[in-house]
Amino acid sequence: MRRWNGWGDEATTFALPDGADAFLSRVVGPSVAPTDATLALTVAAVEAAGVPAIPGHALVSTEPEDRLRHARGQSLPDWIALRSGRIGRVPDGVARPASAKDVRALIAWARETGMRLVPYGGGTSVLGQLAAPDEAPYISVDLGRMAGLMSLDPASGLATFGPGTAGPDVESALATAGRTLGHYPQSFELSTVGGWIATRSVGQQSIGYGRIDERFAGGTLESPAGTLRMPPHPASAAGPDVRQVVLGSEGRLGIVTEAVLRTSPLPEDERFHAVFFPDWERAYAAAHELAGAELPLSMIRFSTPAETETNLALAGHPGTMRALRAYLGLRGAGRGRAMAVIGAAGGHATVSVALLEAFGILGRHGGVRAPRVGEEWRRNRFRTPYLRDALWSAGYAVDTLETAADWSVVPALLAELAPKMRRALEAEGERVHAFAHLSHVYPSGSSVYVTYVYRLAPDPDATLARWRTVKDAASEVIVRLGGTISHQHGVGRDHRRWLPAEKGELGIRLIESLAATLDPDGIMAPGNLVAGPARGDRPRPGAARARRSGAAAAGGSGGAAPTHDGSPDA
Amino acid sequence: MRRWNGWGDEATTFALPDGADAFLSRVVGPSVAPTDATLALTVAAVEAAGVPAIPGHALVSTEPEDRLRHARGQSLPDWIALRSGRIGRVPDGVARPASAKDVRALIAWARETGMRLVPYGGGTSVLGQLAAPDEAPYISVDLGRMAGLMSLDPASGLATFGPGTAGPDVESALATAGRTLGHYPQSFELSTVGGWIATRSVGQQSIGYGRIDERFAGGTLESPAGTLRMPPHPASAAGPDVRQVVLGSEGRLGIVTEAVLRTSPLPEDERFHAVFFPDWERAYAAAHELAGAELPLSMIRFSTPAETETNLALAGHPGTMRALRAYLGLRGAGRGRAMAVIGAAGGHATVSVALLEAFGILGRHGGVRAPRVGEEWRRNRFRTPYLRDALWSAGYAVDTLETAADWSVVPALLAELAPKMRRALEAEGERVHAFAHLSHVYPSGSSVYVTYVYRLAPDPDATLARWRTVKDAASEVIVRLGGTISHQHGVGRDHRRWLPAEKGELGIRLIESLAATLDPDGIMAPGNLVAGPARGDRPRPGAARARRSGAAAAGGSGGAAPTHDGSPDA
Repeated sequence: MRRWNGWGDEATTFALPDGADAFLSRVVGPSVAPTDATLALTVAAVEAAGVPAIPGHALVSTEPEDRLRHARGQSLPDWIALRSGRIGRVPDGVARPASAKDVRALIAWARETGMRLVPYGGGTSVLGQLAAPDEAPYISVDLGRMAGLMSLDPASGLATFGPGTAGPDVESALATAGRTLGHYPQSFELSTVGGWIATRSVGQQSIGYGRIDERFAGGTLESPAGTLRMPPHPASAAGPDVRQVVLGSEGRLGIVTEAVLRTSPLPEDERFHAVFFPDWERAYAAAHELAGAELPLSMIRFSTPAETETNLALAGHPGTMRALRAYLGLRGAGRGRAMAVIGAAGGHATVSVALLEAFGILGRHGGVRAPRVGEEWRRNRFRTPYLRDALWSAGYAVDTLETAADWSVVPALLAELAPKMRRALEAEGERVHAFAHLSHVYPSGSSVYVTYVYRLAPDPDATLARWRTVKDAASEVIVRLGGTISHQHGVGRDHRRWLPAEKGELGIRLIESLAATLDPDGIMAPGNLVAGPARGDRPRPGAARARRSGAAAAGGSGGAAPTHDGSPDA
Repeated sequence: MRRWNGWGDEATTFALPDGADAFLSRVVGPSVAPTDATLALTVAAVEAAGVPAIPGHALVSTEPEDRLRHARGQSLPDWIALRSGRIGRVPDGVARPASAKDVRALIAWARETGMRLVPYGGGTSVLGQLAAPDEAPYISVDLGRMAGLMSLDPASGLATFGPGTAGPDVESALATAGRTLGHYPQSFELSTVGGWIATRSVGQQSIGYGRIDERFAGGTLESPAGTLRMPPHPASAAGPDVRQVVLGSEGRLGIVTEAVLRTSPLPEDERFHAVFFPDWERAYAAAHELAGAELPLSMIRFSTPAETETNLALAGHPGTMRALRAYLGLRGAGRGRAMAVIGAAGGHATVSVALLEAFGILGRHGGVRAPRVGEEWRRNRFRTPYLRDALWSAGYAVDTLETAADWSVVPALLAELAPKMRRALEAEGERVHAFAHLSHVYPSGSSVYVTYVYRLAPDPDATLARWRTVKDAASEVIVRLGGTISHQHGVGRDHRRWLPAEKGELGIRLIESLAATLDPDGIMAPGNLVAGPARGDRPRPGAARARRSGAAAAGGSGGAAPTHDGSPDA
């Protein structure tokens, strides 16, 4: 069973590794384990919904637990809401269409009734993309029944998937045909094809397999204005690329009902290697040079010293880690060291030569290879989200944020971003442990990915306020220095007020005009990306309003519910 | 001096190679050399323009020859018009802005006066993108003064160019800094950065260096609604990618005034090799397998037997060609052979291994390497447009068209496209020599590029009618089989009526909504891509109408001028 208020399957738990508590206690202070709200009490607080009957079919469930389980994603504000039981609004119903025809019927019904529709894939969005769109009743459109491989063309490797297909099901369906998509975001276990497209997802091996915007070849979008078919041409000069506006549309243009993806042969060979550098200066120079060399690698990832030390401290296996540290120290990579992981996938010869050339570059910058650490990284790469549960239970909040910029901006981002976040809670005497890595390295620039940890406050509202303070400090730095507000997570509600800095006023109007064309009534997830259309000229639906505060169960102070709409821009 | 009615510089002429006349005479019949219109008489027939004075500055020339030289691109209809002197409308003036400020002033003036603006880069568009937008007076906006490298960031390799920078100037400016764009469309000598972006250009080495849609990182677009700035992030998940709607916008959204392009280091090593196959079946299987192997090559190009024989026949050097044919015959690639050219660029080791792996695949399908032919191909790759002049003078019209589709469609395209074009003029007893190659090969599909030759008719209108018959036959096949109407040339006027088959009615409305947002009055090249906005509600500009028929000089029959607007969809 999926965890209702955390990550992943209830049967899977990773305990906090030995020494982690001491480490965190040292870097942000000793913590107090929180008391979470229970599912039963939180469900009991969900108010009855007022969804009008759907003529002819019964796609919509109004069962309270079902609605609760579709109310939130995986952002830290989502976690705070779920763990405290202060969940705010929940959808008035959950629809489970089984076909494009069902989706069209839902959209037609929503247009009639003024109901809003919010697509739900894996429920892993981290920027408030699942939040209540506006004051009107809304339905979560769970695409879990529209899942699986629909067709695979052996000649082209084009695979058509239902939007609700989760990562492991994508790979297992393709593997039987000797193919792979190679798309491995950290949310791989739960996130879905439709969600990847809607948020412009990026997998860990994006150098080799491409981001989702390079893998999405076409398919079908059902919108209020009708059906948009996108043929899967390998490339086209026939005007603006419509696929590129569906990518990143976060539900605003409609629901992708069929996604045609470009796949690759399963690699003959695939290898991951870790290399440690004596200091960040040399690691950075190596990353920069390696990116510019445009070698046929699948992954390049460089951790700053702060992240490197944190990873070693949280890795468990204290004996092995001591030995590794000693080995690295002897080879010149002692305190202040920085870890890189590189990967290559493909034919034996291509992989061997690419790694050989890469090791040449890294070695010239003082890089030292550490046996087995690369494969270890690979084995644990989807475990990190589970650690969040363990950290929460120990009294620590964890969140991540990310950006990308060109190489002339990256040093300033690294110099300002995590340091500013570390000091963001100084006023209230709290420390933030923030550390970064370069997660996706391009010839012209790099993404910068920051993980940060701080102590939970006794009051969930205060925990949320801390999050907002840190997040705002980070977003201000990103926007001021010229990074994108998101390299791989999207916009949702939480980044909306930062988007104009990047798109410009005209860019925002372009996005609004796309939404107005495909969704003239503003029923599709209004509020994601850009504000929904101004209202007042349409008949209000008669459905009952859902209760807006959900103070329930343990830990609650009874204050107003922290919703994504509570941010200053809403 | 640039040729006013043909390709390239007047000082550069390539004579028809020995034996070419006999070959063409055999495949399409003996020809009669045409009598072209003279520049003097054609200029004399250009009517005085009625451009209102521009307050404050004098950007616009109304000199007749200048206007004539900006009236047309390089499509076959353009050639027929220029060679016959039946040029139809010419712009009412030619503006030469020197800065973004000048462009803004021009746009403001056009909004006031109702004047239309048609951006002009290298004048190499082949689908009527430079045609008179509608009935209103129009200005050709020549971007030749906004040329050159504006800045190059050494850290990121991001280079900012003026839109009017031509291919050779891009490469020479970058070469001094050890960089390359690697964008080599066949029009490289004359085409410009702005034109590449506006038409989604693809260079010959697109596998290695990327299409222009992969190289265009951002920049500035001046539109009637204001200035759109696009930051050059290496990647972003912050909503729909605005850059991807500027790409392929063909002047409809505004004028790119600064283009930030991703560049690469000059390759340490670059090689081109030719491989011949005994027959097309084996060549095709090799192309398909090589594409799927995703090797780090820069170029893969496979000619069908008809193209292979034509290339050998038109190559000149009869002695060398006889020796090559004999050599290939002995190695098993006799009549019916098909030629491939592959290229690789990068570090020595990567290039060597990529070519070695590629030769392995090609060899297993019976491919035979031919020494020196690959380098010969590279040396002559920009010569082909000049051959068009020689062929025209000999009485033959040459044109090309192209598409792309996934591998499940490519065999049907190859089976139908050129064969149907060959028979398209049967009714009037004329033959068409049409032959194809796979010019850009992707893991999921390929482009199909067709060159076709037919005899000029005594009457230019009949030559144009022949073109339309062949072009329509080809477009019908492409659209019916599901190819894109253009992989690399764009849409302009000539492909406009085929675009809805690909974008769908909703896709067309999305493009219209983008244009309506950035250009609410419809002054920017209306008619390219999609029809201009409906008119009647705006004050008509007072400028005099340009004359619509330009029967002048030799060869003319005095009939209506063949404009791009004469196509059935206009």
